[in-house]
Amino acid sequence: MNDRFLRACRREATDVTPVWFMRQAGRYMAEYRALREKHTLLEICKTPELALEVTLQPLRLGFDAAILFADILLPLEPMGAPFEFARGEGPVVHQPVRTAADVERLRVCDPEEGLGYVLDAIRLIRRELDGKTPLIGFAGAPFTIASYLIEGGKSSHYQLTKKLMWSEPDTWRALMEKVSEVVRRYLRAQIEAGAQAVQLFDSWVGALSPEDYRRYVLPHVRHILADVETTGVPVIHFGTNTTTLLEAQREAGGTVLGVDWRLPLDDAWARIGYDRAIQGNLDPLLLLAPREVAVARAQEIVARAGRRPGHIFNLGHGIVPETPVATVQAVVEAVHAASQA
Amino acid sequence: MNDRFLRACRREATDVTPVWFMRQAGRYMAEYRALREKHTLLEICKTPELALEVTLQPLRLGFDAAILFADILLPLEPMGAPFEFARGEGPVVHQPVRTAADVERLRVCDPEEGLGYVLDAIRLIRRELDGKTPLIGFAGAPFTIASYLIEGGKSSHYQLTKKLMWSEPDTWRALMEKVSEVVRRYLRAQIEAGAQAVQLFDSWVGALSPEDYRRYVLPHVRHILADVETTGVPVIHFGTNTTTLLEAQREAGGTVLGVDWRLPLDDAWARIGYDRAIQGNLDPLLLLAPREVAVARAQEIVARAGRRPGHIFNLGHGIVPETPVATVQAVVEAVHAASQA
Repeated sequence: MNDRFLRACRREATDVTPVWFMRQAGRYMAEYRALREKHTLLEICKTPELALEVTLQPLRLGFDAAILFADILLPLEPMGAPFEFARGEGPVVHQPVRTAADVERLRVCDPEEGLGYVLDAIRLIRRELDGKTPLIGFAGAPFTIASYLIEGGKSSHYQLTKKLMWSEPDTWRALMEKVSEVVRRYLRAQIEAGAQAVQLFDSWVGALSPEDYRRYVLPHVRHILADVETTGVPVIHFGTNTTTLLEAQREAGGTVLGVDWRLPLDDAWARIGYDRAIQGNLDPLLLLAPREVAVARAQEIVARAGRRPGHIFNLGHGIVPETPVATVQAVVEAVHAASQA
Repeated sequence: MNDRFLRACRREATDVTPVWFMRQAGRYMAEYRALREKHTLLEICKTPELALEVTLQPLRLGFDAAILFADILLPLEPMGAPFEFARGEGPVVHQPVRTAADVERLRVCDPEEGLGYVLDAIRLIRRELDGKTPLIGFAGAPFTIASYLIEGGKSSHYQLTKKLMWSEPDTWRALMEKVSEVVRRYLRAQIEAGAQAVQLFDSWVGALSPEDYRRYVLPHVRHILADVETTGVPVIHFGTNTTTLLEAQREAGGTVLGVDWRLPLDDAWARIGYDRAIQGNLDPLLLLAPREVAVARAQEIVARAGRRPGHIFNLGHGIVPETPVATVQAVVEAVHAASQA
């Protein structure tokens, strides 16, 4: 049983620093691309046997945790806001949510009904992993999910999202309450199905000022995390571009705070407080650099963490498809070697 | 003569806080859209009479400075890397710069030759303004320009840019040295033509970690600013998403540091140091909010600045086309009213 990851979440000493990477199962791996030739992303998500296969693929690279293969937008369909992945354009939400009536129509769905396939995948993966490697579940955070619902897809500046937030605070609150309740139930259901840790992805919340975060987002994240943390399962609270939100994100909750590369790891940890674990923070694009450069930067992060218990090595965001597998493996090995107790 | 803006750059007391907005001349104004029906953006930039007309258009809204109508990519053409604005897609550089040979081919152009039309526009605008309102010139900073050259256009993650920076540091340095020398000469020429202040736009440098900024960017920005500041003309050093780079940007230079909305203005100023002026920092999307919300947030920023001499009110980035003119005008008036000495 490799329990480094779970021990680090609880800030207990570990033999070496645990490593997992966001999007560690994905297009940079030949075996994933081969499967994607036969199945769409949503087919893989919705077929537990395929989700199992993809979730396990990267473990041969030496990662200390498996992360469920799924997508943060899966709850949209059972909420009544179906979407598809348009070729090369990312997700497209067919009917964006932009009015009080649109929000009214959204359903606070029961995860066992609308997202049963995710829970089945978790049960299957847990059985297959047989306690050898811990399994991480995850969900999108309310701001990030709301931004897709409102914009109708990926956005660069979240123009419609912010406009709604400032112009119709009641509609915004109603939307955030519905999304938060869905996410809360979904994470709880994942934990009941066997997820041994969960990550809340607030990938896009760094577009907000600290004032707006506190006013329009924090209470909703807290609604989720205050409840999920009572399960005793570690929660990783992740964002990118959130260097000015760290204190507020800490208040919102999380056993572990996930940070990107814009702040050196030791500075970020000091800001968050040493009573929380920290996850990060290699720029994922460094995996495109020559292997020795990527390894040296990874070693630097390990040095900054100083073997203080509670550091989980990760990227600041997901692996990009162009990443060489050999560099990923070299970095995983380098982190383990550099952090040897 | 309205000298509030120039006085604030020098941290001298002013009757009210000066205001100008990035992209204050642009698609949000009907008179600009009317002109764009007859001329392309590049035609306007290259025709001093049209650049004059557009530069003056927003002054009726009460701004305390005019900013030259131009584009940060104009130097690309005389450098030998022509581009166009593809409909709805932003700039497209026809032959991206990705190898040492590509960098070798770039010319360090003489601004009077390749960019004479910009300098003519400055001379014309200065004559027309007749000392009543100060004129700001500008250029893109080397990282931001290099990112367009390497990616071939706008990018979300600067993947090719970072890969080149880390993989071929000599090619990177050669590229940054050429771009920096072009920018240095260009800003000097703008000042000689009559620009009373200049802004260096490092709009995308916030994608870098502080370590990468210091190693790969700072020396090149300093090369430009150390020279330009000897003219005695104020230099505004602007970036977005640079909350963790502020100390390093300060070291790189600038009479005024421009900041976005991710850090409250008073916190940002304390970090930068009170021996520099500060420009910012309303989220430009707040201009899409109800007018009273935008005005209240603007007043809050004025309050945070506390009438300490050296605050120039601006947005954290450019005005978006959907912005109502009436809100812009209301915010300008509110800043003046709230800061009345």
